[in-house]
Amino acid sequence: MTDDTDIRLCRTFQTAPAAVPKDDTAKYLRSGLEAEGFQAPDWLVPDMEDGTAPDMKAEGLENTIELVPEYDFPGEIWPRVEWSYEDESFRDRGREQIDQLVAEIGDEIDGVVVPKVGRLADVERAAEVVAEAEAEHGYPDGSIGMSIIVETGRARSDLREIATFGGDSRLTALVFGPVDYAAELGARDLGDGRPRWDGLLEALSNEASAGGLLSIGGPFDDLFKERAGLTYYNADDYADQVEHEAHLGLDGSWSLYPKQTIQANTIHMPTSQELERDVSKIERFNAAKREGTGAVTLDGQMVDEATFKVFRNTILQVRSIHETRPEQTQAHYDQSLLERALELELSYQ
Amino acid sequence: MTDDTDIRLCRTFQTAPAAVPKDDTAKYLRSGLEAEGFQAPDWLVPDMEDGTAPDMKAEGLENTIELVPEYDFPGEIWPRVEWSYEDESFRDRGREQIDQLVAEIGDEIDGVVVPKVGRLADVERAAEVVAEAEAEHGYPDGSIGMSIIVETGRARSDLREIATFGGDSRLTALVFGPVDYAAELGARDLGDGRPRWDGLLEALSNEASAGGLLSIGGPFDDLFKERAGLTYYNADDYADQVEHEAHLGLDGSWSLYPKQTIQANTIHMPTSQELERDVSKIERFNAAKREGTGAVTLDGQMVDEATFKVFRNTILQVRSIHETRPEQTQAHYDQSLLERALELELSYQ
Amino acid sequence: MTDDTDIRLCRTFQTAPAAVPKDDTAKYLRSGLEAEGFQAPDWLVPDMEDGTAPDMKAEGLENTIELVPEYDFPGEIWPRVEWSYEDESFRDRGREQIDQLVAEIGDEIDGVVVPKVGRLADVERAAEVVAEAEAEHGYPDGSIGMSIIVETGRARSDLREIATFGGDSRLTALVFGPVDYAAELGARDLGDGRPRWDGLLEALSNEASAGGLLSIGGPFDDLFKERAGLTYYNADDYADQVEHEAHLGLDGSWSLYPKQTIQANTIHMPTSQELERDVSKIERFNAAKREGTGAVTLDGQMVDEATFKVFRNTILQVRSIHETRPEQTQAHYDQSLLERALELELSYQ
Repeated sequence: MTDDTDIRLCRTFQTAPAAVPKDDTAKYLRSGLEAEGFQAPDWLVPDMEDGTAPDMKAEGLENTIELVPEYDFPGEIWPRVEWSYEDESFRDRGREQIDQLVAEIGDEIDGVVVPKVGRLADVERAAEVVAEAEAEHGYPDGSIGMSIIVETGRARSDLREIATFGGDSRLTALVFGPVDYAAELGARDLGDGRPRWDGLLEALSNEASAGGLLSIGGPFDDLFKERAGLTYYNADDYADQVEHEAHLGLDGSWSLYPKQTIQANTIHMPTSQELERDVSKIERFNAAKREGTGAVTLDGQMVDEATFKVFRNTILQVRSIHETRPEQTQAHYDQSLLERALELELSYQ
Repeated sequence: MTDDTDIRLCRTFQTAPAAVPKDDTAKYLRSGLEAEGFQAPDWLVPDMEDGTAPDMKAEGLENTIELVPEYDFPGEIWPRVEWSYEDESFRDRGREQIDQLVAEIGDEIDGVVVPKVGRLADVERAAEVVAEAEAEHGYPDGSIGMSIIVETGRARSDLREIATFGGDSRLTALVFGPVDYAAELGARDLGDGRPRWDGLLEALSNEASAGGLLSIGGPFDDLFKERAGLTYYNADDYADQVEHEAHLGLDGSWSLYPKQTIQANTIHMPTSQELERDVSKIERFNAAKREGTGAVTLDGQMVDEATFKVFRNTILQVRSIHETRPEQTQAHYDQSLLERALELELSYQ
Repeated sequence: MTDDTDIRLCRTFQTAPAAVPKDDTAKYLRSGLEAEGFQAPDWLVPDMEDGTAPDMKAEGLENTIELVPEYDFPGEIWPRVEWSYEDESFRDRGREQIDQLVAEIGDEIDGVVVPKVGRLADVERAAEVVAEAEAEHGYPDGSIGMSIIVETGRARSDLREIATFGGDSRLTALVFGPVDYAAELGARDLGDGRPRWDGLLEALSNEASAGGLLSIGGPFDDLFKERAGLTYYNADDYADQVEHEAHLGLDGSWSLYPKQTIQANTIHMPTSQELERDVSKIERFNAAKREGTGAVTLDGQMVDEATFKVFRNTILQVRSIHETRPEQTQAHYDQSLLERALELELSYQ
């Protein structure tokens, strides 16, 4: 989280192929832009990279430029372009895509997502490409953000330097890309799936926090399970992954599918029980403080400023969601609990 | 551990609020100074930071200055002062506290504990404050130590550089602070408590070792459990945490409570079985060596110099405890086993 | 893995004591050189360091120089010499051993393994020693490789810099040394064995990948188990360790024993099921691609270039093994499956 009092929301980073081989090639992009309620992601990512087939890249760019302005999407728009630290032709296409996106819909997008970056110098090179497009088309410096997919050994190796650079730049989010990452490292699936890469996730959460950036988990692509003759949406395993990410302090999760967006939006939102617990703790803390007893003990646990911050984070997250998605907070919480959360005094001293 | 033959002990880093709102505001500090046997921590940390209420900070400092010289405490004394990498007013109060502590009881304290440090530059700034107090009040350079709480994304990010700086400085211990850390990263408790942050703990153990520093685990604040109408001390969960820390090579654990001190002192002390096993292994190794067979195999395992070191660490730890706390070693081990440990030849070659 | 299309094999890093106190002091070295089939390691490491007793070091060097040229060993030969970042006398002996090995059998060895290195400067110092021997005895620059054992806090701390240096140098493999490492960090075995050091293993896999090096797991020395009166080879626990290493993308595992070599060679080789699965996936992918549907979905999972790479790695690994050890691939796979793997078109586009 970037700041204790101003939380930038990205509970859900939903990629949608920008063009697919169907009658309506923009089917999934349109569906993302029209999503409502809990299906509406915080960030929608029109994907011109791996989600769009090689022969449909141009159409994906056209779809994005044409459709995004048609909708009043309630969250942020972050197209993913092509890039590769090790292949100049990908970078050339990415440069062209960034230029056209900024030229045509620079007002409508919050930034671009750059995949397969390498070491710090490659991230700086990508940021320079965005800066050039911005200047060329008359946008103020820094108005077009950049987020990166961390999916190479080199980017993981330079994560600290990249995040430190990010603190003073247009870099906004560090997003994990486990499939490319596993392939680069030669990690093998011996029947238990891919590793969770807990060391990487911890570092992603830490460096994003130290650099004032957002950290986002990787996609989960086993969308469906088959058992006893039935194929059904794999809700359990995705929820486990998202909960693990929230536990480690990641700010959001990747979604490939509307049902995943419902789940990630929900998990990165405090439960009623959590909100009730932390609202109540702060209410009791505030009451004890008014009685002037100094250090306050709640439920056998001494509350210091650090402990207090943990309760407060719950309230701040709810307030940020309420500001941009009031239909979600209203559906999720009792009216009276929500009002207590919105009115609570949050100062420790 | 700083050296194979000279182990600086900090099995227990026990914080005691320097002032509490009771008739005797120094109740917990006094209790720490008077502790005997296994309740006596290796390090006692009079806490003027989060453990003491904002309106009692001045009294906490007075209590520390008044009480510490009254007792002949058998371990080390390390007051924790206020500090914050992001708030100058905290640093100003910390500077004043350090200055008064060194001025009044510089002979009685081993160093100061500085919390909420940020990147390397902030740690160097804190070290400079200690150096100034030392010079101002006529103490030799380096005579007042400094330990830090690693509890911000920035300190974790710079851990390697901080530990490397530490190797040539007054820096003595790296102590983990999980509550602030979780709050900074936005980590959420989804019913399973806080993450263990295994990546951070591994790094703490490694960097402390590489920099010749001590590494200490974080506090465990679920002191009590309630079940079937009874509230009781949560011995199991604390012991699990301390054992995990010892397993990773951390030198000691944080204690908030005399019973925790008993447990951490005990766990960071080899069991009778471990000591018997390693004394016996070295005795058999020494015997095989005397027979001149070269490489020695014990219990199906080839013993090389590295394996030997692991056994030897057990003996060295017991010897260090015996030197400063003979009542603990005498209570813990059979007289004959203890004597074998004290007399054993520890050279590999 | 160093490259997607050219995989340098080191499934097995088998150390053999260069001299043991037996009638034939070269018994284990000879046995390694003569090993056939799955018992033949990819790398054989004549060990003049911890595996050879102090009074037999000279004989170990003689055995290595005498025996290696006698055999036409099908894999690579990497003698392990003495070294220590903290002890000059070890470095002096290491320098002498490297000099004699290059002088006498420089044509027969692929490189030397240097243990107990410290920070980057110490690794560079060791590389310089190899360079000097190479120049002195007329070998082309870089013809004698160097691999290191990562087993000190300092080497772990500098791992990123060491691997980056490695990318442009004779450095070939990063090998984990858990026994020395645990001893340096003061890690304790409280009944559950040593820690797995997952953070270190993840970093080893990542930095090796980013630096174009091989990563190899540490030795497993509980060779035998005793139960119900029987002492037997501990196959299960070793296989668990090797599978964990493969899962994280390590390229190979350390072997101390012919049966371990069989297991590590086998695990770091795709199973028939894996090979069948990935050959079939690529065959179906190729067929779908020929039909021109663009993005291809297999088993409910969308295949992009990154996903494709994972399947392809399986095939490339089999092809590399087949090139150097055709008897292993022929014994392991059905003739028809092997042929499909060897003939498959592996391009994504």
